Amino acid sequence: MTRLSNYLLPTEKQAPADAEAISHKLMVRAGLIRQMGAGMWTWLPAGWRVHQRVVAIIRQELDGIGAQEMLMPVLQPAELWRKTGRLDIDELFKLQDRKGSEMVLAMTHEEAVTFHVAQTVRSYRDLPLILYHFQVKERDEPRPRAGVLRTREFVMKDSYSFDRDRAGLEENYALHIGAYDRIMARTGLRFYRVESDVGMMGGLGADEYMAPCPAGEDQVALAPGYAANVEVALRHPDIREVGDGDAHPPRYMLGDQVLTIEPAIEIGNIFKLGTRYSEPLGANFLDEAGNEQPIWMGSYGIGPARIVAAAVEQFADEYGISWPRALAPFAVHLIALGKPDTPEREACDGVYETLRAGGVEVLYDDREGQPGEKFADAELLGCPLRLTVGRKSLESGEIEVQLRRGRQQAAGLALGGDPEALLRAVDELWRSLP
Amino acid sequence: MTRLSNYLLPTEKQAPADAEAISHKLMVRAGLIRQMGAGMWTWLPAGWRVHQRVVAIIRQELDGIGAQEMLMPVLQPAELWRKTGRLDIDELFKLQDRKGSEMVLAMTHEEAVTFHVAQTVRSYRDLPLILYHFQVKERDEPRPRAGVLRTREFVMKDSYSFDRDRAGLEENYALHIGAYDRIMARTGLRFYRVESDVGMMGGLGADEYMAPCPAGEDQVALAPGYAANVEVALRHPDIREVGDGDAHPPRYMLGDQVLTIEPAIEIGNIFKLGTRYSEPLGANFLDEAGNEQPIWMGSYGIGPARIVAAAVEQFADEYGISWPRALAPFAVHLIALGKPDTPEREACDGVYETLRAGGVEVLYDDREGQPGEKFADAELLGCPLRLTVGRKSLESGEIEVQLRRGRQQAAGLALGGDPEALLRAVDELWRSLP
Repeated sequence: MTRLSNYLLPTEKQAPADAEAISHKLMVRAGLIRQMGAGMWTWLPAGWRVHQRVVAIIRQELDGIGAQEMLMPVLQPAELWRKTGRLDIDELFKLQDRKGSEMVLAMTHEEAVTFHVAQTVRSYRDLPLILYHFQVKERDEPRPRAGVLRTREFVMKDSYSFDRDRAGLEENYALHIGAYDRIMARTGLRFYRVESDVGMMGGLGADEYMAPCPAGEDQVALAPGYAANVEVALRHPDIREVGDGDAHPPRYMLGDQVLTIEPAIEIGNIFKLGTRYSEPLGANFLDEAGNEQPIWMGSYGIGPARIVAAAVEQFADEYGISWPRALAPFAVHLIALGKPDTPEREACDGVYETLRAGGVEVLYDDREGQPGEKFADAELLGCPLRLTVGRKSLESGEIEVQLRRGRQQAAGLALGGDPEALLRAVDELWRSLP
Repeated sequence: MTRLSNYLLPTEKQAPADAEAISHKLMVRAGLIRQMGAGMWTWLPAGWRVHQRVVAIIRQELDGIGAQEMLMPVLQPAELWRKTGRLDIDELFKLQDRKGSEMVLAMTHEEAVTFHVAQTVRSYRDLPLILYHFQVKERDEPRPRAGVLRTREFVMKDSYSFDRDRAGLEENYALHIGAYDRIMARTGLRFYRVESDVGMMGGLGADEYMAPCPAGEDQVALAPGYAANVEVALRHPDIREVGDGDAHPPRYMLGDQVLTIEPAIEIGNIFKLGTRYSEPLGANFLDEAGNEQPIWMGSYGIGPARIVAAAVEQFADEYGISWPRALAPFAVHLIALGKPDTPEREACDGVYETLRAGGVEVLYDDREGQPGEKFADAELLGCPLRLTVGRKSLESGEIEVQLRRGRQQAAGLALGGDPEALLRAVDELWRSLP
């Protein structure tokens, strides 16, 4: 039951003064998120619905490759991070407890998961294994920016694979690539998988998932059959700069193909860690011959918040957000134009009840207020289907339908007829959407 | 698909040396949780399944009273806590970011939610409102103890109600009592709702939900028609101590009824905050006459981890855990006694596939290993139904059934017959369980 008259959706006409990224502006204006401090954000109810849609897709695909969900703490003993040599990372928040013990707030969970695996995995029979959780991460970002794109706290899905050798790691890595490809495709985003650097994680190789959009802080280099993080591309021996002086930005060629460089948001990254963490933390197993061997690990992250923001960036228009249907907070935004106790309001209440009883996720704008404001809020929030019932509907016998993407008017739906027919018609419309 | 051969369920014969509480011992031994440091715990996959069962029940009942789910950050500006006078609480973790700004880790979210409501609620039309989230809490406990019963980090569901006046608060408080009563009843726990102190929360009144068990740190005072936290009871004007000297513990009477005092775990608490937080944080609304008024608030917490631990405490026997069916990690623990490639193993694989395809949550012990070890692990983990298929099953044509609670053998189920009949029989058994 979601009636806008008692739902916290504080829409705003103005974006925050410091907002530059489209997603930052629109997510605040649509009432999805609110800021608590630099890099600290709250997900309001409608925003959290979108976030949790992404979480549900990720969970389903991870479970599908046999990954096991768990939960590891954010607050951790500093000692673990000292052992892996990561205690000095600037982004790592450090603190002391009341007894003066050194603690950290996890920015990722390699140390934690490896600590547990070192204690629980004993033999090759216990491998392979994929573990994951959704947990808040804390990072002391020097420059939080762009709403939820770069924050100091965010929910991340991080999974970790454990294998007896490199071949096993390659298999689990390939399983994750499959799962990530499906996750990204299901969100409805445009994305690239690109080669990347291992960075602070260390290890043997890495790929990134990138969603192209102007607010992206990263850059991807693209040519037919080639996609890489731009830093990786610039080290490619066959990529050469061609220039016509200082006046223009540099252009690059790969063989005889022009390399396109696009800004993009990093929405996922996966790393072949090898034994980078298992060795310092003593995560070993006994092989068939009874010899102790270090466990081979992989690490796989996705930030649901960035997927949400990337979807806003890629599909917004001048009126607001336009969700891909997999991420929409509600399938239907139903607008009542009539005042309470009018026949047109009663008709709209009936449509709401039919949709709700039929399991359609519907946000019902039953507020007092002007039609123009209601339409503007609906376009700002960006649910894929907008249905409107007003006095005109009673005359025409039709519910007005707008498809948010492209703002096209669709054929009206019969008002007051067979509820099953209405549900079938809404379902058919829904399936036709991107 | 949950096959024990590749599931992380590290059972142990021995409990941790420092463990005293039954839940601490058994949850570690059953492979549900592992410790990372003092008061810092990881939920392993089977434990997390139980935790999330509690979360799902809470979410459903909160949504049922119109509460709206969101997510607020753990990392917060210290300034907010200074305004409410709670910055000096010893249990509050404080830290500085790289620029030297003072931050805290939220131990509860009154400050955060009131901050947002102050910015977004303007008029009496925006009220009433119930907001909630599931989020990790951090508390610098001086004495973490008893496994997940008293930790420095834990997931809490906290909800907050916002009303225009005291009558509104009383209504939302009553709605929460209804939801909490249903939540606790659905978990299968024995529990009391008792009057309590407001403590560090401040405000006008409070109730606690208590699950009686020997490991409880709290005490409830009970008499016919009366239940209170023992501190509250001892201030009751009609409760009097009757003693026969120093040799015996004190006894108390309420009128002519003996007061029973039982140890209990606090599993939920609810507070009438009044304007304790809205005033310092400026959370006001405009009433119909255009006058600014402070918002009346309530605050409502539940710790899923404590509900899990209390269920272990209340129903365990000398063999292990015995879950109420609402919380069990799996409905069925299926044990294959036969080695791979034997007819009895093939028959057990068939039962597994039937149950799985029928939507039964089943943990399949398909490991190599001795029957005795498999039975011991099943009794330790405590799933309500244990099914066993071995060579004997082929002879008798029956799947062996044990009900974990009470360890009774039930009538066998037909092996290799109609899959639908097997699913119906399992479902019927399931419904008969506590």
